[in-house]
Amino acid sequence: MNTTLIKIKHSAKDVYDKIMKKQKPSMKFPVRSLANVKYDSKKGYFELLGNKKIRTLTANTVKTFAQTLRMMALSKNVIEKDDIATKREVYYVSKNWNDAKFREQPESDTVMDDIEAMFGVNREQLGFIPEEKGGDVAGKLIVIDRDPVTGKEIKIDCTKFGSGAYSVPSDVENLKFETDAKFILAIETAGMFERLNRHHFWKKSNCILVSMGGVPTRACRRFIRRMSDEHKLPVYAFTDGDPYGYFNIFRTLKVGSGNAAHLNEFFCVPRAKFLGVTPQDILDYKLPTHPLKDVDIKRAKDAIKNDPFVQNYKEWQKAIELMLKLGKRVEQQAFAQYGLNYVIDKYLPDKLKDQKTWLP
Amino acid sequence: MNTTLIKIKHSAKDVYDKIMKKQKPSMKFPVRSLANVKYDSKKGYFELLGNKKIRTLTANTVKTFAQTLRMMALSKNVIEKDDIATKREVYYVSKNWNDAKFREQPESDTVMDDIEAMFGVNREQLGFIPEEKGGDVAGKLIVIDRDPVTGKEIKIDCTKFGSGAYSVPSDVENLKFETDAKFILAIETAGMFERLNRHHFWKKSNCILVSMGGVPTRACRRFIRRMSDEHKLPVYAFTDGDPYGYFNIFRTLKVGSGNAAHLNEFFCVPRAKFLGVTPQDILDYKLPTHPLKDVDIKRAKDAIKNDPFVQNYKEWQKAIELMLKLGKRVEQQAFAQYGLNYVIDKYLPDKLKDQKTWLP
Repeated sequence: MNTTLIKIKHSAKDVYDKIMKKQKPSMKFPVRSLANVKYDSKKGYFELLGNKKIRTLTANTVKTFAQTLRMMALSKNVIEKDDIATKREVYYVSKNWNDAKFREQPESDTVMDDIEAMFGVNREQLGFIPEEKGGDVAGKLIVIDRDPVTGKEIKIDCTKFGSGAYSVPSDVENLKFETDAKFILAIETAGMFERLNRHHFWKKSNCILVSMGGVPTRACRRFIRRMSDEHKLPVYAFTDGDPYGYFNIFRTLKVGSGNAAHLNEFFCVPRAKFLGVTPQDILDYKLPTHPLKDVDIKRAKDAIKNDPFVQNYKEWQKAIELMLKLGKRVEQQAFAQYGLNYVIDKYLPDKLKDQKTWLP
Repeated sequence: MNTTLIKIKHSAKDVYDKIMKKQKPSMKFPVRSLANVKYDSKKGYFELLGNKKIRTLTANTVKTFAQTLRMMALSKNVIEKDDIATKREVYYVSKNWNDAKFREQPESDTVMDDIEAMFGVNREQLGFIPEEKGGDVAGKLIVIDRDPVTGKEIKIDCTKFGSGAYSVPSDVENLKFETDAKFILAIETAGMFERLNRHHFWKKSNCILVSMGGVPTRACRRFIRRMSDEHKLPVYAFTDGDPYGYFNIFRTLKVGSGNAAHLNEFFCVPRAKFLGVTPQDILDYKLPTHPLKDVDIKRAKDAIKNDPFVQNYKEWQKAIELMLKLGKRVEQQAFAQYGLNYVIDKYLPDKLKDQKTWLP
């Protein structure tokens, strides 16, 4: 039996038994905030400390308590039918729950996050998916999915898409992978992804290309993580050289985010490394730049001061200090100054040969 | 020879000949603004009126003139090499043009738009692509692409993606299609697309599903248009029931936008019809709603007063008036109130049987 179903039934039975004994039922949730988080570079992701909050059924908590139980029931129902529900749909389903209906989606999202944290499972294991999608993929990879209606196995060959790509679904838990690639290259922009795909960079370099399309969604991070785990594949990130690329994109990919720490274990890629574009590349490749914006400077200074990830790595501290000293940011497209395919013919091959210029 | 190349060479030769005769060379561009646009529902898209601006080489125009010629040369180069360049890359390539380099990307985008309009071709035909991608596709469709390196034909079967999808590339000009589908369903949200895909709605209804992911990009609109043209397929739009869904998404899909009127001929789908969610559906299906926001009300009133598309259709005027009277907007996910698959089992089949409830 599905382990999430077992957890739901166990928890519901506990509530039921307490009520039968005329005791007050309660549920325990980990506290979800940065104050309840630690970073250990050996583990590789933000982890929850042990603090828990207890929700006991009282006159004040009766609505949230009922909503939590109804959402657990919905999850059970969805899992049993092998269906999915988006976060938005869950909110609308609650419109039938009479007094237990949610007024706004943030309320139902919070209850969903609590249930995830309580059971130590991720949203997808509850049968709930976000509205977002999981990035595009091309290269040396065969994705093994199954036909959602017949259950028959389907093999999707990511070398066979021409100029297009495989669009990753939002639930990737049941996918399997065949590959003899040497690494995964996770790329910030769709434009750079298309260039590398069009020139079959994945063939020359024997790799898998993933377009993150900005900050990688949970599904995108999970997809990279599962490929990487199953085939012991290293993961290299290629983003713009600015605080957004370094922290919003790369750090989220590698160690996860602060406000969803109960999930980082599943949704980050601790073995990811930062290939570029680094502040040092600006100097080494004489790249055209833009001045740092005020928000970039603020974000960079914050990172040095408060980010446990940056505090853990001298290399990142030095890189950020160099960026601040130069007062410059740089984009993936900047290599076009030397010809449209300089990035393929020179920059990436150079970088792949010498990991000393990378960041951890 | 490629027709764009012919146009570039012809135009460049004209400039060259004028200079050799010691005359001032000039180039003619259509004026790109709403004041130079008309709407004829028989044609089906915003069209340019005849107004042109002439750019003659003088001391004042020398920089823009040079930039236009250099960008034409870059386009020629890219087309001859069968390569692509993103708008951002074009901007960076210009960093090597000495005094003709662009300071900011909006400058290079404007010159690119002028060249498009001058030649009456679209950006993709110049070899330039946006940073965006073209939506996701699943269902009764085989896309015929070619391997970008070997040139060999590749067939992509969009029924064979399991829970995933085919991600449309940003340049779709050279794709071909095989299909026996009866229609194309263009869907606003990725979540609804996944639901319909997971339950193989495309098999039951013999159709092609396209996820627009909000306002459809040019590539997405062009992809739908080309499928629709090649196979005489009707196109049905399924969006949220709010001014954003009606005007930003559906109207852009159907007739294009005001500030890129020189392109609407290629980048809109005049035969698209609006299946739902209509304001009348709120009443007919007793759907849960949200109150209209101030910005919704403003946008709706503006549309009635100023939008040539709305002015052309009584049905749309009535629908907007009903929406304003109800003071309500509705989402695609609202059907979940009646069960997660009500949209598949009841709403869409009902609607597909009776086009009288649709909007033009």
